[in-house]
Amino acid sequence: MQRKFITVEGCEGVGKSTQLRLLKDYFEEHGIDAVFTREPGGTPVAERIRAILLDKKLQVSPEVEAALFACARMEHINNLILPSLKQGKVVVCDRYIDSSLAYQGVARNLGIDNVYEINAYARDNCMPELTIFIDMDPANSWRKKNGTVILNDRMEGESQEFHAACYRGYKEMAKREPERIISIVPDEEKYETHRAIIATLKDKGII
Amino acid sequence: MQRKFITVEGCEGVGKSTQLRLLKDYFEEHGIDAVFTREPGGTPVAERIRAILLDKKLQVSPEVEAALFACARMEHINNLILPSLKQGKVVVCDRYIDSSLAYQGVARNLGIDNVYEINAYARDNCMPELTIFIDMDPANSWRKKNGTVILNDRMEGESQEFHAACYRGYKEMAKREPERIISIVPDEEKYETHRAIIATLKDKGII
Repeated sequence: MQRKFITVEGCEGVGKSTQLRLLKDYFEEHGIDAVFTREPGGTPVAERIRAILLDKKLQVSPEVEAALFACARMEHINNLILPSLKQGKVVVCDRYIDSSLAYQGVARNLGIDNVYEINAYARDNCMPELTIFIDMDPANSWRKKNGTVILNDRMEGESQEFHAACYRGYKEMAKREPERIISIVPDEEKYETHRAIIATLKDKGII
Repeated sequence: MQRKFITVEGCEGVGKSTQLRLLKDYFEEHGIDAVFTREPGGTPVAERIRAILLDKKLQVSPEVEAALFACARMEHINNLILPSLKQGKVVVCDRYIDSSLAYQGVARNLGIDNVYEINAYARDNCMPELTIFIDMDPANSWRKKNGTVILNDRMEGESQEFHAACYRGYKEMAKREPERIISIVPDEEKYETHRAIIATLKDKGII
Protein backbone atom coordinates (compact mmCIF):
# COMPACT_ATOMS: atom_id res chain seq x y z
CA MET A 1 0.00 0.00 0.00
CA GLN A 2 1.37 3.40 -0.98
CA ARG A 3 2.09 5.73 1.91
CA LYS A 4 0.21 8.99 1.50
CA PHE A 5 1.97 11.81 3.24
CA ILE A 6 1.33 15.26 1.72
CA THR A 7 2.78 18.55 2.86
CA VAL A 8 1.65 22.03 1.87
CA GLU A 9 4.21 24.81 1.79
CA GLY A 10 4.43 28.47 0.90
CA CYS A 11 5.18 31.94 2.23
CA GLU A 12 2.97 33.90 4.61
CA GLY A 13 -0.32 35.25 3.32
CA VAL A 14 -0.47 33.30 0.05
CA GLY A 15 -3.68 31.43 0.87
CA LYS A 16 -2.25 28.23 2.32
CA SER A 17 -4.84 28.03 5.11
CA THR A 18 -7.69 28.62 2.69
CA GLN A 19 -6.47 25.83 0.41
CA LEU A 20 -6.05 23.46 3.37
CA ARG A 21 -9.64 24.18 4.41
CA LEU A 22 -10.92 23.50 0.88
CA LEU A 23 -8.87 20.30 0.75
CA LYS A 24 -10.28 19.15 4.08
CA ASP A 25 -13.84 19.80 2.85
CA TYR A 26 -13.10 17.85 -0.34
CA PHE A 27 -11.75 14.86 1.60
CA GLU A 28 -14.78 14.86 3.90
CA GLU A 29 -17.20 15.07 0.96
CA HIS A 30 -15.41 12.21 -0.80
CA GLY A 31 -15.08 10.03 2.31
CA ILE A 32 -11.29 10.04 2.23
CA ASP A 33 -9.88 9.14 5.65
CA ALA A 34 -7.36 11.89 6.30
CA VAL A 35 -5.57 13.57 9.20
CA PHE A 36 -4.88 17.29 8.89
CA THR A 37 -2.05 18.54 11.04
CA ARG A 38 0.45 21.40 11.16
CA GLU A 39 4.01 22.28 12.03
CA PRO A 40 5.44 23.24 14.32
CA GLY A 41 2.97 21.38 16.53
CA GLY A 42 0.58 18.51 16.13
CA THR A 43 1.19 16.81 19.51
CA PRO A 44 1.16 18.17 23.09
CA VAL A 45 4.97 18.33 23.35
CA ALA A 46 5.37 19.77 19.84
CA GLU A 47 2.71 22.42 20.55
CA ARG A 48 4.72 23.46 23.62
CA ILE A 49 7.81 23.76 21.41
CA ARG A 50 5.71 25.77 18.91
CA ALA A 51 4.84 28.23 21.66
CA ILE A 52 8.56 28.87 22.24
CA LEU A 53 9.34 29.18 18.52
CA LEU A 54 6.58 31.66 17.77
CA ASP A 55 6.89 33.76 20.95
CA LYS A 56 7.67 37.33 19.92
CA LYS A 57 9.25 38.07 23.31
CA LEU A 58 11.98 35.41 22.93
CA GLN A 59 15.25 35.67 21.04
CA VAL A 60 16.23 32.35 19.49
CA SER A 61 19.47 31.86 17.56
CA PRO A 62 19.18 30.31 14.05
CA GLU A 63 20.92 27.09 15.16
CA VAL A 64 18.65 26.59 18.16
CA GLU A 65 15.62 27.55 16.09
CA ALA A 66 16.47 24.89 13.49
CA ALA A 67 17.17 22.30 16.20
CA LEU A 68 13.90 23.04 18.01
CA PHE A 69 11.90 22.72 14.80
CA ALA A 70 13.62 19.38 14.21
CA CYS A 71 12.77 18.23 17.78
CA ALA A 72 9.13 19.16 17.34
CA ARG A 73 9.15 17.37 13.99
CA MET A 74 10.60 14.16 15.45
CA GLU A 75 7.90 14.18 18.11
CA HIS A 76 5.23 14.83 15.48
CA ILE A 77 6.54 12.05 13.20
CA ASN A 78 6.64 9.40 15.93
CA ASN A 79 3.41 10.24 17.68
CA LEU A 80 1.10 11.34 14.90
CA ILE A 81 2.35 11.14 11.31
CA LEU A 82 3.80 7.61 11.14
CA PRO A 83 1.04 6.01 13.28
CA SER A 84 -1.66 7.64 11.06
CA LEU A 85 0.09 6.56 7.84
CA LYS A 86 0.34 3.01 9.21
CA GLN A 87 -3.44 3.04 9.64
CA GLY A 88 -3.65 3.78 5.91
CA LYS A 89 -4.79 7.35 6.38
CA VAL A 90 -3.81 10.26 4.18
CA VAL A 91 -1.81 12.73 6.28
CA VAL A 92 -1.82 16.38 5.21
CA CYS A 93 0.62 18.64 7.01
CA ASP A 94 0.59 22.44 6.93
CA ARG A 95 4.35 23.15 6.67
CA TYR A 96 7.04 20.52 7.16
CA ILE A 97 10.72 20.00 6.37
CA ASP A 98 10.74 22.43 3.42
CA SER A 99 9.76 25.25 5.79
CA SER A 100 12.94 24.52 7.76
CA LEU A 101 15.01 24.30 4.58
CA ALA A 102 13.62 27.61 3.27
CA TYR A 103 13.36 29.57 6.54
CA GLN A 104 16.39 28.37 8.52
CA GLY A 105 18.43 27.00 5.62
CA VAL A 106 18.13 29.97 3.28
CA ALA A 107 16.57 32.96 5.10
CA ARG A 108 18.56 32.37 8.31
CA ASN A 109 21.64 31.41 6.27
CA LEU A 110 22.34 28.04 7.91
CA GLY A 111 22.49 26.36 4.49
CA ILE A 112 20.03 23.85 3.02
CA ASP A 113 22.41 20.90 3.45
CA ASN A 114 23.07 21.71 7.12
CA VAL A 115 19.37 21.98 7.86
CA TYR A 116 18.75 18.70 6.06
CA GLU A 117 21.38 17.20 8.36
CA ILE A 118 19.72 18.66 11.48
CA ASN A 119 16.53 17.02 10.17
CA ALA A 120 18.20 13.68 9.50
CA TYR A 121 15.45 11.86 11.39
CA ALA A 122 12.71 13.25 9.12
CA ARG A 123 14.87 12.86 6.01
CA ASP A 124 15.56 9.19 6.75
CA ASN A 125 12.19 8.15 8.15
CA CYS A 126 9.41 10.36 6.98
CA MET A 127 9.72 12.29 3.74
CA PRO A 128 6.45 13.36 2.06
CA GLU A 129 5.27 11.53 -1.04
CA LEU A 130 4.10 14.90 -2.36
CA THR A 131 4.69 18.51 -1.41
CA ILE A 132 2.40 21.18 -2.79
CA PHE A 133 4.26 24.48 -2.95
CA ILE A 134 1.92 27.45 -3.29
CA ASP A 135 4.25 29.44 -5.48
CA MET A 136 3.62 33.11 -4.79
CA ASP A 137 6.12 35.86 -4.02
CA PRO A 138 5.24 37.13 -0.52
CA ALA A 139 5.73 40.70 -1.80
CA ASN A 140 2.56 40.14 -3.88
CA SER A 141 0.64 38.02 -1.38
CA TRP A 142 -3.16 38.19 -1.19
CA ARG A 143 -2.84 39.41 2.36
CA LYS A 144 -0.69 42.31 1.17
CA LYS A 145 -3.09 43.03 -1.70
CA ASN A 146 -6.00 43.11 0.71
CA GLY A 147 -4.06 45.47 2.95
CA THR A 148 -4.50 43.11 5.92
CA VAL A 149 -0.96 42.64 7.14
CA ILE A 150 -1.28 40.95 10.53
CA LEU A 151 1.94 40.08 12.33
CA ASN A 152 0.75 37.24 14.49
CA ASP A 153 4.01 35.67 15.59
CA ARG A 154 7.81 35.80 15.63
CA MET A 155 8.10 34.41 12.08
CA GLU A 156 5.44 36.59 10.51
CA GLY A 157 6.98 39.62 12.21
CA GLU A 158 10.25 39.17 10.28
CA SER A 159 11.36 41.69 7.62
CA GLN A 160 10.29 41.74 3.97
CA GLU A 161 13.85 40.65 3.03
CA PHE A 162 13.49 37.63 5.31
CA HIS A 163 10.27 36.53 3.62
CA ALA A 164 11.78 37.18 0.17
CA ALA A 165 14.67 34.88 1.15
CA CYS A 166 12.19 32.19 2.30
CA TYR A 167 10.58 32.39 -1.12
CA ARG A 168 13.97 31.98 -2.82
CA GLY A 169 14.56 28.98 -0.54
CA TYR A 170 11.32 27.35 -1.65
CA LYS A 171 12.14 27.98 -5.31
CA GLU A 172 15.54 26.38 -4.79
CA MET A 173 13.97 23.33 -3.12
CA ALA A 174 11.43 22.98 -5.95
CA LYS A 175 14.36 22.97 -8.39
CA ARG A 176 16.29 20.42 -6.32
CA GLU A 177 13.42 17.97 -5.82
CA PRO A 178 11.07 18.36 -8.78
CA GLU A 179 9.63 14.85 -8.38
CA ARG A 180 8.41 15.50 -4.84
CA ILE A 181 7.68 19.23 -4.88
CA ILE A 182 4.95 20.43 -7.24
CA SER A 183 4.65 24.21 -7.58
CA ILE A 184 1.18 25.61 -7.99
CA VAL A 185 0.86 29.30 -8.83
CA PRO A 186 -2.28 30.39 -7.01
CA ASP A 187 -5.14 31.99 -8.90
CA GLU A 188 -7.10 34.95 -7.58
CA GLU A 189 -10.10 32.61 -7.78
CA LYS A 190 -9.42 30.23 -4.86
CA TYR A 191 -11.48 27.36 -6.35
CA GLU A 192 -9.25 27.46 -9.40
CA THR A 193 -6.20 26.85 -7.18
CA HIS A 194 -8.13 24.16 -5.32
CA ARG A 195 -8.89 22.33 -8.56
CA ALA A 196 -5.21 22.46 -9.52
CA ILE A 197 -4.29 20.87 -6.16
CA ILE A 198 -6.89 18.11 -6.54
CA ALA A 199 -5.66 17.41 -10.07
CA THR A 200 -2.10 17.08 -8.72
CA LEU A 201 -3.20 14.67 -5.96
CA LYS A 202 -4.96 12.53 -8.56
CA ASP A 203 -2.04 12.70 -10.91
CA LYS A 204 0.29 11.44 -8.16
CA GLY A 205 -2.10 8.62 -7.24
CA ILE A 206 -2.72 9.99 -3.74
CA ILE A 207 -6.48 10.08 -4.24
CA MET B 1 44.41 31.85 29.90
CA GLN B 2 42.95 28.52 30.94
CA ARG B 3 39.22 28.19 30.40
CA LYS B 4 37.47 27.32 33.65
CA PHE B 5 34.28 25.43 33.01
CA ILE B 6 33.24 23.07 35.82
CA THR B 7 30.20 20.83 35.91
CA VAL B 8 28.76 19.03 38.93
CA GLU B 9 26.97 15.74 38.36
CA GLY B 10 25.28 13.05 40.39
CA CYS B 11 22.01 11.23 41.01
CA GLU B 12 18.97 12.71 42.74
CA GLY B 13 19.17 13.38 46.48
CA VAL B 14 22.93 12.94 46.91
CA GLY B 15 23.59 16.49 48.12
CA LYS B 16 24.49 18.16 44.83
CA SER B 17 22.54 21.36 45.60
CA THR B 18 24.09 21.61 49.08
CA GLN B 19 27.58 21.29 47.64
CA LEU B 20 26.86 23.89 44.96
CA ARG B 21 25.68 26.30 47.65
CA LEU B 22 28.83 25.73 49.70
CA LEU B 23 30.96 26.20 46.58
CA LYS B 24 29.18 29.47 45.78
CA ASP B 25 29.79 30.72 49.32
CA TYR B 26 33.46 29.77 49.03
CA PHE B 27 33.87 31.61 45.72
CA GLU B 28 32.19 34.72 47.13
CA GLU B 29 34.35 34.66 50.26
CA HIS B 30 37.50 34.29 48.17
CA GLY B 31 36.52 36.91 45.59
CA ILE B 32 36.49 34.43 42.70
CA ASP B 33 34.43 35.77 39.81
CA ALA B 34 32.09 32.91 38.98
CA VAL B 35 28.77 32.27 37.29
CA PHE B 36 26.59 29.52 38.75
CA THR B 37 24.07 28.06 36.35
CA ARG B 38 22.08 24.88 35.81
CA GLU B 39 20.76 22.52 33.17
CA PRO B 40 18.36 22.22 31.64
CA GLY B 41 17.95 25.98 31.71
CA GLY B 42 20.13 29.00 32.27
CA THR B 43 18.63 31.28 29.59
CA PRO B 44 15.02 32.33 28.88
CA VAL B 45 14.62 29.93 25.93
CA ALA B 46 16.37 27.06 27.75
CA GLU B 47 14.19 27.60 30.83
CA ARG B 48 11.12 27.26 28.60
CA ILE B 49 12.54 23.99 27.25
CA ARG B 50 13.23 22.92 30.87
CA ALA B 51 9.57 23.44 31.69
CA ILE B 52 8.62 20.98 28.92
CA LEU B 53 11.25 18.41 29.96
CA LEU B 54 10.29 18.35 33.62
CA ASP B 55 6.50 18.56 33.18
CA LYS B 56 4.96 15.48 34.79
CA LYS B 57 1.87 15.76 32.59
CA LEU B 58 3.79 15.35 29.33
CA GLN B 59 4.99 12.16 27.70
CA VAL B 60 8.29 12.66 25.88
CA SER B 61 10.02 9.89 23.91
CA PRO B 62 13.70 9.20 24.75
CA GLU B 63 14.88 10.50 21.36
CA VAL B 64 12.96 13.75 21.66
CA GLU B 65 14.01 14.09 25.29
CA ALA B 66 17.69 13.78 24.34
CA ALA B 67 17.26 16.19 21.41
CA LEU B 68 15.47 18.78 23.58
CA PHE B 69 18.19 18.62 26.24
CA ALA B 70 20.75 19.16 23.46
CA CYS B 71 18.77 22.17 22.13
CA ALA B 72 18.59 23.74 25.57
CA ARG B 73 22.33 23.06 25.98
CA MET B 74 23.22 24.72 22.67
CA GLU B 75 21.23 27.79 23.70
CA HIS B 76 22.91 27.79 27.13
CA ILE B 77 26.40 27.40 25.63
CA ASN B 78 26.02 30.25 23.14
CA ASN B 79 24.21 32.72 25.35
CA LEU B 80 25.69 32.16 28.78
CA ILE B 81 28.53 29.65 29.16
CA LEU B 82 30.90 30.68 26.34
CA PRO B 83 30.36 34.45 26.82
CA SER B 84 31.07 34.11 30.57
CA LEU B 85 34.18 32.00 29.97
CA LYS B 86 35.41 34.58 27.46
CA GLN B 87 35.16 37.21 30.20
CA GLY B 88 37.55 35.02 32.22
CA LYS B 89 34.90 33.92 34.70
CA VAL B 90 34.69 30.50 36.28
CA VAL B 91 31.45 28.85 35.15
CA VAL B 92 29.92 26.21 37.41
CA CYS B 93 27.03 24.26 35.95
CA ASP B 94 24.65 22.04 37.92
CA ARG B 95 24.30 19.08 35.49
CA TYR B 96 25.56 19.14 31.90
CA ILE B 97 26.41 16.67 29.13
CA ASP B 98 27.11 13.75 31.52
CA SER B 99 23.51 13.96 32.74
CA SER B 100 22.39 13.34 29.15
CA LEU B 101 24.91 10.53 28.71
CA ALA B 102 23.81 8.84 31.96
CA TYR B 103 20.06 9.53 31.83
CA GLN B 104 19.26 9.28 28.12
CA GLY B 105 22.32 7.31 27.02
CA VAL B 106 22.18 4.60 29.67
CA ALA B 107 18.91 4.80 31.64
CA ARG B 108 16.78 5.47 28.53
CA ASN B 109 18.89 3.05 26.51
CA LEU B 110 19.79 5.36 23.64
CA GLY B 111 23.49 4.52 24.04
CA ILE B 112 26.29 6.80 25.26
CA ASP B 113 27.80 7.20 21.78
CA ASN B 114 24.46 8.16 20.23
CA VAL B 115 23.79 10.76 22.90
CA TYR B 116 27.30 12.14 22.45
CA GLU B 117 26.45 12.48 18.76
CA ILE B 118 23.16 14.28 19.52
CA ASN B 119 25.29 16.61 21.67
CA ALA B 120 27.92 17.12 18.98
CA TYR B 121 27.70 20.89 19.43
CA ALA B 122 28.61 20.71 23.14
CA ARG B 123 31.18 17.98 22.53
CA ASP B 124 32.98 20.02 19.87
CA ASN B 125 32.65 23.49 21.37
CA CYS B 126 32.19 23.41 25.09
CA MET B 127 33.41 20.44 27.11
CA PRO B 128 34.08 21.07 30.82
CA GLU B 129 37.66 21.31 32.04
CA LEU B 130 36.52 19.45 35.15
CA THR B 131 33.46 17.45 36.12
CA ILE B 132 32.84 16.68 39.79
CA PHE B 133 30.79 13.49 40.06
CA ILE B 134 29.18 13.11 43.49
CA ASP B 135 29.53 9.36 43.57
CA MET B 136 26.67 7.97 45.60
CA ASP B 137 24.25 5.18 44.76
CA PRO B 138 20.77 6.78 44.66
CA ALA B 139 19.44 3.75 46.57
CA ASN B 140 21.46 5.05 49.57
CA SER B 141 20.95 8.77 48.97
CA TRP B 142 20.77 11.19 51.92
CA ARG B 143 17.29 12.07 50.88
CA LYS B 144 16.27 8.41 51.14
CA LYS B 145 18.05 8.08 54.49
CA ASN B 146 16.22 11.12 55.80
CA GLY B 147 12.96 9.66 54.57
CA THR B 148 12.22 12.78 52.55
CA VAL B 149 11.53 11.42 49.10
CA ILE B 150 10.04 14.30 47.16
CA LEU B 151 9.10 13.67 43.55
CA ASN B 152 9.35 17.18 42.19
CA ASP B 153 9.42 16.58 38.46
CA ARG B 154 9.22 14.12 35.60
CA MET B 155 12.82 12.90 36.09
CA GLU B 156 12.69 12.55 39.85
CA GLY B 157 9.41 10.68 39.51
CA GLU B 158 11.09 7.86 37.55
CA SER B 159 11.48 4.34 39.00
CA GLN B 160 14.25 3.16 41.30
CA GLU B 161 15.59 1.04 38.39
CA PHE B 162 15.81 4.17 36.25
CA HIS B 163 17.87 6.00 38.87
CA ALA B 164 20.06 2.93 39.40
CA ALA B 165 20.73 2.90 35.64
CA CYS B 166 21.64 6.61 35.73
CA TYR B 167 24.17 5.80 38.44
CA ARG B 168 25.65 3.02 36.31
CA GLY B 169 25.83 5.55 33.45
CA TYR B 170 27.82 7.98 35.56
CA LYS B 171 30.19 5.22 36.71
CA GLU B 172 30.73 4.24 33.08
CA MET B 173 31.45 7.85 32.10
CA ALA B 174 33.91 8.26 35.00
CA LYS B 175 35.70 5.17 33.73
CA ARG B 176 35.72 6.45 30.13
CA GLU B 177 36.98 9.95 30.91
CA PRO B 178 39.04 9.73 34.11
CA GLU B 179 41.02 12.88 33.29
CA ARG B 180 37.93 15.08 33.14
CA ILE B 181 35.57 13.37 35.59
CA ILE B 182 36.68 13.24 39.22
CA SER B 183 34.50 11.06 41.47
CA ILE B 184 34.00 12.27 45.02
CA VAL B 185 32.27 9.91 47.43
CA PRO B 186 30.25 12.20 49.66
CA ASP B 187 30.74 12.15 53.41
CA GLU B 188 27.87 12.35 55.88
CA GLU B 189 29.56 15.54 57.09
CA LYS B 190 28.85 17.96 54.22
CA TYR B 191 31.89 20.18 54.96
CA GLU B 192 34.12 17.14 54.50
CA THR B 193 32.74 16.68 50.98
CA HIS B 194 33.08 20.42 50.37
CA ARG B 195 36.77 20.31 51.35
CA ALA B 196 37.33 17.40 48.95
CA ILE B 197 35.76 19.43 46.11
CA ILE B 198 37.88 22.51 46.89
CA ALA B 199 41.01 20.32 47.00
CA THR B 200 40.12 18.93 43.55
CA LEU B 201 39.59 22.42 42.10
CA LYS B 202 43.00 23.47 43.42
CA ASP B 203 44.63 20.30 42.19
CA LYS B 204 43.28 20.94 38.68
CA GLY B 205 44.44 24.57 38.72
CA ILE B 206 40.89 25.93 38.49
CA ILE B 207 41.30 28.06 41.62
